Amino acid sequence: MIPDLATIEAAANRIAPHIHHTPVMSSSFLNTMTGSEIFMKCENFQKVGAFKSRGACNAVFSLSEEELSHGVCTHSSGNHAQALARAARIRGCKAYIVMPETAPSVKVEAVRGYGGIITFCKPTLAAREETLRQVMGKTGAVEIHPYNDYRIIAGQATAAMELLQSIPDLEIIMAPVGGGGLLSGTALSTKYLSPSTRVIAAEPKGADDAYRSLKARQIIPSVSPVTIADGLLTSLGTLTFPIILDNVGQILTVSEEAIVRAMQLVWERMKIIIEPSSAVPIGAILENPDIFKGKKTGVIISGGNVNLNKLPWQIQS
Amino acid sequence: MIPDLATIEAAANRIAPHIHHTPVMSSSFLNTMTGSEIFMKCENFQKVGAFKSRGACNAVFSLSEEELSHGVCTHSSGNHAQALARAARIRGCKAYIVMPETAPSVKVEAVRGYGGIITFCKPTLAAREETLRQVMGKTGAVEIHPYNDYRIIAGQATAAMELLQSIPDLEIIMAPVGGGGLLSGTALSTKYLSPSTRVIAAEPKGADDAYRSLKARQIIPSVSPVTIADGLLTSLGTLTFPIILDNVGQILTVSEEAIVRAMQLVWERMKIIIEPSSAVPIGAILENPDIFKGKKTGVIISGGNVNLNKLPWQIQS
Repeated sequence: MIPDLATIEAAANRIAPHIHHTPVMSSSFLNTMTGSEIFMKCENFQKVGAFKSRGACNAVFSLSEEELSHGVCTHSSGNHAQALARAARIRGCKAYIVMPETAPSVKVEAVRGYGGIITFCKPTLAAREETLRQVMGKTGAVEIHPYNDYRIIAGQATAAMELLQSIPDLEIIMAPVGGGGLLSGTALSTKYLSPSTRVIAAEPKGADDAYRSLKARQIIPSVSPVTIADGLLTSLGTLTFPIILDNVGQILTVSEEAIVRAMQLVWERMKIIIEPSSAVPIGAILENPDIFKGKKTGVIISGGNVNLNKLPWQIQS
Repeated sequence: MIPDLATIEAAANRIAPHIHHTPVMSSSFLNTMTGSEIFMKCENFQKVGAFKSRGACNAVFSLSEEELSHGVCTHSSGNHAQALARAARIRGCKAYIVMPETAPSVKVEAVRGYGGIITFCKPTLAAREETLRQVMGKTGAVEIHPYNDYRIIAGQATAAMELLQSIPDLEIIMAPVGGGGLLSGTALSTKYLSPSTRVIAAEPKGADDAYRSLKARQIIPSVSPVTIADGLLTSLGTLTFPIILDNVGQILTVSEEAIVRAMQLVWERMKIIIEPSSAVPIGAILENPDIFKGKKTGVIISGGNVNLNKLPWQIQS
């Protein structure tokens, strides 16, 4: 069942001991530059460096001891893998993570650092899913999908809930969209707590499946998406799509150039490290100033996990 | 006269409208790694990206309209230049900045962006001082020295004052030391507000004039210092040295390797951008864990102005 307000509030209480209540930050430079007031909910400061800790903790701590007796599992090469491994370790159960053999060693080590038990597979979606089925068959672990799961959606919704509690009179709230877990959660919290606030999503032009899905009113999966925003390569899910269809007013697609420029501006001016996916909504504001001018806009900064040896503005120059 | 508590409190009130009350941040990873509790006062989030805004605002707003009628001036290629130009613009007076002709264009542009009037000179201390004298002769502007000035010291002292107000039971407080403005201010606030807290300074081994000066009990200027911590190349001043001599228990010198490692750890784990000078106290903790184990330590993170095209761990690898 689509999470209602009580479910999201229960998620917030459930995860509170295990996550950070992240700060909201602003930049007078960016505000002056864009003529708007931007309030950034800094999930880059979240545990594991991303909002994913919210959903993973909510899912793991929602399960009974019995359900958890054989552990949890997922396939992910990204922040969800670390977040799930961490949540499982806190709860005291096992986490089986299926990762493509091409995953960067830093991500593999991070999952291992949280005690995750890794099974490698070929880097295709089919291989991931098949390997996960095998792992589940062998272990009896419960699958926690990275976004197509109402417990995950309710967990991610707590970020927008906190933001709306801190800044109650936002006219617009923004989140990036990949699989749609963060966006659908953001849309639900906004609908319940601040129904007059417009929800605007931002998506890379090079991975615009959500934009096209919303237009077509049906899920159109990504085919070979190309973007620096590596957290946004996935396609919408069957649970996230209907929530987004009903509650998201608009999806702005953003050029790679604007994503990199936004990321660099935030690093230089705010002295905080955000990952490319987090820069997508800021890039949307830079490319569409008229929508935001004179408005109070909240933005969920999704995470801060970046390869510090390879920065996009260096590659470009 | 050495600033007393009332003077520092007056500085805090004077500058409050023009600066950020910066947050205090911690990292559970760094705390676990070092076995201590580290509280970082994040002046990298300060206006102009550095604590220098505090001293510059205090100096400029301490002066009368008449004293300011011909403007203020300084020689600096660093954060003080920007901070002074900004403070002058807010107050509505002119700021004449003498900069070496070798200053990076990004710093020149930043000073110009705040309305600073730049005079270039050869990149030697003698040329800077001579050029500044000429500028003062021509304009009648008041010199605001970057650190050897009690108004500057009182302004910088407000960072530690805020930190001690937020975290009252610190056992150790740390600041990096270059010219000694931040360190002497930190020492004074600590003496007045929390006399049982130990003040420990951190200095690059490659620019250890303060360490040697404290040992010799007289100012020993830097000769050709070499360190990545470019904010700490200057030598102690005649006003900062006696305060440091009387109130700083210890100066730890830090290897370049530890400075870079500390900087990278903070970027990766805390997702905040700190400049090499700010990483020096963290590097000192990494190299001297026994001093800090089991202790609550406050650290003034001095700033976050970094060339994002050239990161030290990239140069090394």
